[in-house]
Amino acid sequence: MVQAALHSGAAHRRSVFEVFARRLPEGRRYGVVAGTGRVLDAVENFRFDDDVLAFLSRENVVDRETLDWLARFRFRGDILGYPEGEVYFPGSPVLQVEATFAEAVLLETLILSILNHDSAIAAAASRMAVAAGSRPLIEMGARRTHELGAVAAARAAYVGGFTTTSDLAAGFRYKIPTVGTSAHAFTLLHDTERDAFTAQVQSMGRGTTLLVDTYDLNAAVRTAVEVAGPELGAVRIDSGDLLLLAHRVRQQLDDLGAKQTRIVVTSDLDEYAIASLAAAPVDAYGVGTSLVTGSGHPTCSMVYKLVARASYDADDAPLLPVAKKSMGAKTSTGGRKWAARRLDDDGVAEAEVIGTGPVPSELANRQLLVPLVRGGEIVAREPLDAARTRHTEARAGLPLSATQLSRGEPVIATEMV
Amino acid sequence: MVQAALHSGAAHRRSVFEVFARRLPEGRRYGVVAGTGRVLDAVENFRFDDDVLAFLSRENVVDRETLDWLARFRFRGDILGYPEGEVYFPGSPVLQVEATFAEAVLLETLILSILNHDSAIAAAASRMAVAAGSRPLIEMGARRTHELGAVAAARAAYVGGFTTTSDLAAGFRYKIPTVGTSAHAFTLLHDTERDAFTAQVQSMGRGTTLLVDTYDLNAAVRTAVEVAGPELGAVRIDSGDLLLLAHRVRQQLDDLGAKQTRIVVTSDLDEYAIASLAAAPVDAYGVGTSLVTGSGHPTCSMVYKLVARASYDADDAPLLPVAKKSMGAKTSTGGRKWAARRLDDDGVAEAEVIGTGPVPSELANRQLLVPLVRGGEIVAREPLDAARTRHTEARAGLPLSATQLSRGEPVIATEMV
Repeated sequence: MVQAALHSGAAHRRSVFEVFARRLPEGRRYGVVAGTGRVLDAVENFRFDDDVLAFLSRENVVDRETLDWLARFRFRGDILGYPEGEVYFPGSPVLQVEATFAEAVLLETLILSILNHDSAIAAAASRMAVAAGSRPLIEMGARRTHELGAVAAARAAYVGGFTTTSDLAAGFRYKIPTVGTSAHAFTLLHDTERDAFTAQVQSMGRGTTLLVDTYDLNAAVRTAVEVAGPELGAVRIDSGDLLLLAHRVRQQLDDLGAKQTRIVVTSDLDEYAIASLAAAPVDAYGVGTSLVTGSGHPTCSMVYKLVARASYDADDAPLLPVAKKSMGAKTSTGGRKWAARRLDDDGVAEAEVIGTGPVPSELANRQLLVPLVRGGEIVAREPLDAARTRHTEARAGLPLSATQLSRGEPVIATEMV
Repeated sequence: MVQAALHSGAAHRRSVFEVFARRLPEGRRYGVVAGTGRVLDAVENFRFDDDVLAFLSRENVVDRETLDWLARFRFRGDILGYPEGEVYFPGSPVLQVEATFAEAVLLETLILSILNHDSAIAAAASRMAVAAGSRPLIEMGARRTHELGAVAAARAAYVGGFTTTSDLAAGFRYKIPTVGTSAHAFTLLHDTERDAFTAQVQSMGRGTTLLVDTYDLNAAVRTAVEVAGPELGAVRIDSGDLLLLAHRVRQQLDDLGAKQTRIVVTSDLDEYAIASLAAAPVDAYGVGTSLVTGSGHPTCSMVYKLVARASYDADDAPLLPVAKKSMGAKTSTGGRKWAARRLDDDGVAEAEVIGTGPVPSELANRQLLVPLVRGGEIVAREPLDAARTRHTEARAGLPLSATQLSRGEPVIATEMV
């Protein structure tokens, strides 16, 4: 596309692309924007180095003119978007890229990859966080998804409300708090469970978490408290009927005087399993597979569509709204959008209002798009905790039914005006 | 775990870990091993550099002794495994790592991440390849999954039977054949559809693929042939009732004399949609979302379990089989396994036979595990096409019902002997 547009001259037409999802995953009440910070880093670093240019040349992917253009490429346009952690609904213009056509179209795959992946994980994380209430959630899914997808997933999970991650690479890269655990292999490695517990407590201290379901749960809990004393930090249960076992283990720990020892549960948990343990004496949840696969919805199916472009070949040409007009459901609305969240009299979100004309004055201070990149310069870097806090606040501003786990419609309607 | 095991001394015990899936994703008839080549590269390059060590030290993740051990870390053990592209079944020991406990346990997350992700994609790809028959499949899912997960997905799709990818990064990294496409944005960018088609044909030649569903399909096909002549390579339809439209467009192309012009269809295809188009005049399928999300099963849920370890602390200590014994379904079988595929009299696979004792002589030449790494050195590098070919052959060796798309049981049973 870039080559053909350079050839026709249209490559330099000012263009506006918008990222949006036509719908939420089936049954979901709200979406969560995540990955925005990663998009900014990726756009800033998006370059074509010599190895890549040599490949594109050798394989005749593009011609010489295009190679030269790619070699000089650096994004110099503007990006607006919903800030990270914000919620979104069908049609919400979560990101808006304005640049020449060639510059903007080149970012399509990069931007969509990041937002589709990270937002899917954050949406699942947010539901799990609702189900967990005030109990901490540990991200433990690294081994069930792509090795670097896992690092991004830990980041998105944190935005969505997770507390910590077991992925040290995510701690290293994004400063997310990390926690560790031990596996059954560690117990099996030692000659006895007592040897294993002793080794772990001697090395990690009494505050550590001992895994108690390798052999006999009851015996393991007794041994754990004998080895670590009532100061034992936590025990982890990774199999069986967690509701039943949590009650039994709590009783046993209390009987042994280990009243402060916490119970961590893991074992293919999802938001429904977490919710089902709300009445159980569980102190923390570790979640893996279901989180990193978006709990049934591993992608958000966001798209990146040209909505306006220069009317003709001139730097000062006015923008013309454009949109696909063919049959089927995949049409979209032309023109650059604004978006605002209208509140009811109680200050609760009532509608996602999206338009192409002037912003109604009553919505002027409820607009959702903020500047992220201006003339190629990132203007909205923020610590990850800001996105995490923003998400909690945005979710709290939705009608109460937003946090029901049951399937339903988007909790507020999208109004195109 | 590494720190506590270094502390107890057990870190140096010779250990055997095995990777296996307890079950196939629901309804699937066979699994596909993919990612093995990526595992080998990752193991070879797995190091702890100064930045990472500084992080682990600063955050008190591990103690000084462990940091020193990590700084020196280089995998020196052995790895056996099913060769890439091979099929697998519940319990198949698809990878076997033998090393000291510390060395082997350190690789757990890395190995599982790669195999769980890549094998999930390859399994979906394989089903799509069956559905597509001799028609080519184009991988187009980069924008719907993590940006680097996408590159691995393109690789796994190729192993599973895809023909090409639109992900240039996958072409660059893995030499997978790449093909391009144009988007609706390219048409919308130009003042008329004719301008867009002309620009593309002038730049890319008459063999290019024109996207014909931006405005009116019938008019677009007519314009496409007018612009490119009957030598037009292909048209792409990306929306609507593809079965109906493919017939109409074929008729129109034939009437216009463009009898060789191919029809490429895309639009949220999965293996079922591909199969439903078997009787339509379609020449190639482009597949995105469904492929990169494993068509409903984005992970294989493979686990990495300690199955044997040195009986005591000595270099020549014999290996002792070990296994988790607690309640619930998550138990496993101790001891290092061999695996072989038993054939019936017609040479068709009849059972996946897995054992810990001596290999029965009649299965000796049907064994599935091959050496991949010996003493830290990779001994089984191969071109990606070898894995792709192996997969086609392995699938062809299964009973015919393996390739039914309908839900069912694993097509051969796993026998533990």
